[in-house]
Amino acid sequence: MRIVALAGGVGGAKFAAGLQADLPPGALTVIVNTGDDFEHWGLPICPDIDTVLYGLAGVDNPQTGWGRAAESWAVLTEMERLGAERWFRLGDKDLALHLRRSQWLRQSLSLTEVTDRLRRILGVPSRILPMSDDPVRTLVHTDEGDLPFQEYFVRRRCEPTFLSLTYIGAASATLSPEVAEAFRTAAQIIICPSNPYLSVDPILSVPGLRDLARESPASVVAISPIVGGQAVKGPAAKMMREMGASVSPLTVVDHFADLLDGFVIDEQDSALAEAVLLPTLVTDTIMTDLPSKRRLAEEVLRFNQGLQTVE
Amino acid sequence: MRIVALAGGVGGAKFAAGLQADLPPGALTVIVNTGDDFEHWGLPICPDIDTVLYGLAGVDNPQTGWGRAAESWAVLTEMERLGAERWFRLGDKDLALHLRRSQWLRQSLSLTEVTDRLRRILGVPSRILPMSDDPVRTLVHTDEGDLPFQEYFVRRRCEPTFLSLTYIGAASATLSPEVAEAFRTAAQIIICPSNPYLSVDPILSVPGLRDLARESPASVVAISPIVGGQAVKGPAAKMMREMGASVSPLTVVDHFADLLDGFVIDEQDSALAEAVLLPTLVTDTIMTDLPSKRRLAEEVLRFNQGLQTVE
Repeated sequence: MRIVALAGGVGGAKFAAGLQADLPPGALTVIVNTGDDFEHWGLPICPDIDTVLYGLAGVDNPQTGWGRAAESWAVLTEMERLGAERWFRLGDKDLALHLRRSQWLRQSLSLTEVTDRLRRILGVPSRILPMSDDPVRTLVHTDEGDLPFQEYFVRRRCEPTFLSLTYIGAASATLSPEVAEAFRTAAQIIICPSNPYLSVDPILSVPGLRDLARESPASVVAISPIVGGQAVKGPAAKMMREMGASVSPLTVVDHFADLLDGFVIDEQDSALAEAVLLPTLVTDTIMTDLPSKRRLAEEVLRFNQGLQTVE
Repeated sequence: MRIVALAGGVGGAKFAAGLQADLPPGALTVIVNTGDDFEHWGLPICPDIDTVLYGLAGVDNPQTGWGRAAESWAVLTEMERLGAERWFRLGDKDLALHLRRSQWLRQSLSLTEVTDRLRRILGVPSRILPMSDDPVRTLVHTDEGDLPFQEYFVRRRCEPTFLSLTYIGAASATLSPEVAEAFRTAAQIIICPSNPYLSVDPILSVPGLRDLARESPASVVAISPIVGGQAVKGPAAKMMREMGASVSPLTVVDHFADLLDGFVIDEQDSALAEAVLLPTLVTDTIMTDLPSKRRLAEEVLRFNQGLQTVE
């Protein structure tokens, strides 16, 4: 049984860790947003891939939601002394991974190959696939002008008012054979509780990918990242407000309407279940530790499996 | 009074620190070998520039002779875990400097400009000039084949029998305006106690540089890196033996004969002073701490000054 999950950063990594814990080794493939990727200190950084990688390897920092556990900051401290930009904080262990990735990319390995090497070294049994080997970069149009994603998200802490997004390079990005194969052999497709606009849409913007998900015989469910009128983490709620949309799971389900066979909302939002036009699982979606991640994953897998049986 | 010193790694950095301590701020310019430069972990590394830089900034590690004092190794430890080459050990603080240099070089700053930025940030009052902004790479011909310098020096610990050297790129390397200006305004030129073949010859191989030193009105002295039949540090003695030359200050003075106005040998070799055909200073050349570096520098400066008065 092959499960394909689409994931961005923290929420996606948490749910993917639950799936990995519940599934047989190797059954999970996580397709990860690379629209947040950028260059820092001359090195290519893939924030969402790394968050998923660290989460699945169990070396993530659960306090911050990014970077490594038991991290040290010797290089950053010295870089600051040498006048380097410090708004994006790279720890020593984290930096080693960026250096290694940079070496391999310069040897002309694809990001897919590099990511696969890294996940094997870190002992991750699941496949982690970048949504494309071609660069796609999320540009945030705001009332203060256009900002590259990390400038908006990290440096400006999402403060400027959001207007719209462009996924630069998406139109000419190529679907990798590995991503295409993952969809073709998928028994279930799950959209993790990630930001719909910043994390999932860039993945779906890769030409051909949305069609593969839509046309797959595998049923597709999404888990709402909006719970109780707030985003569990990150700027999704703020973005919805700034778009004039309700901060609600309903905004999420409508956003993915063409793709979904089922939807998962938190028990805090049970009153909304009636309004969803799809089969809906209502459960506790707040993941605080590995057992809660695994329990949610197990429930979602069973729910999704049930949708297929019905069809 | 402007003093120009030609330097390689450890011995050169020690003597340069003595000169800097004895001279008014800004009087010293150190022209440094870049034949040892190479790329590691995808970053440009300039071992001799860094040894001089760290030595003049007082942040060097006197135990190892390379790298930083109070260094940590978090990135190296993680890089090893990620399967990276570990024969060249980069500490965390050291790595920060390589990252910063790499960033600036990619912004099309010259190595001269980058080095000047770094020495200013580290509070070094002396100028540190790479021998050229063009790449020159020392290739070591050995009985086990040709080895790039760091492979011979660090990875193979100078074990293969030395045959000869090629300074790749030297013929087309350009003398920088800064190096040319330093020679033109020099009151004294001093060849530091560095390896003649691996450290000083690459500097002299830059077209025009040897002539500038020879034709300068400033007198030129060298300090023997060979003391008591041994190299104070490094493979100079082994290389001399493998070339069939005496392991002696006399081999050094003969090597630089066309350049020198005077020579400095250690008191352990005082019996050889008679055999030197140039004015010779016999003194304690072993530098163990800043006071001994400064005392030697002061003696050499006075000796060199005396040579000019005589002319």
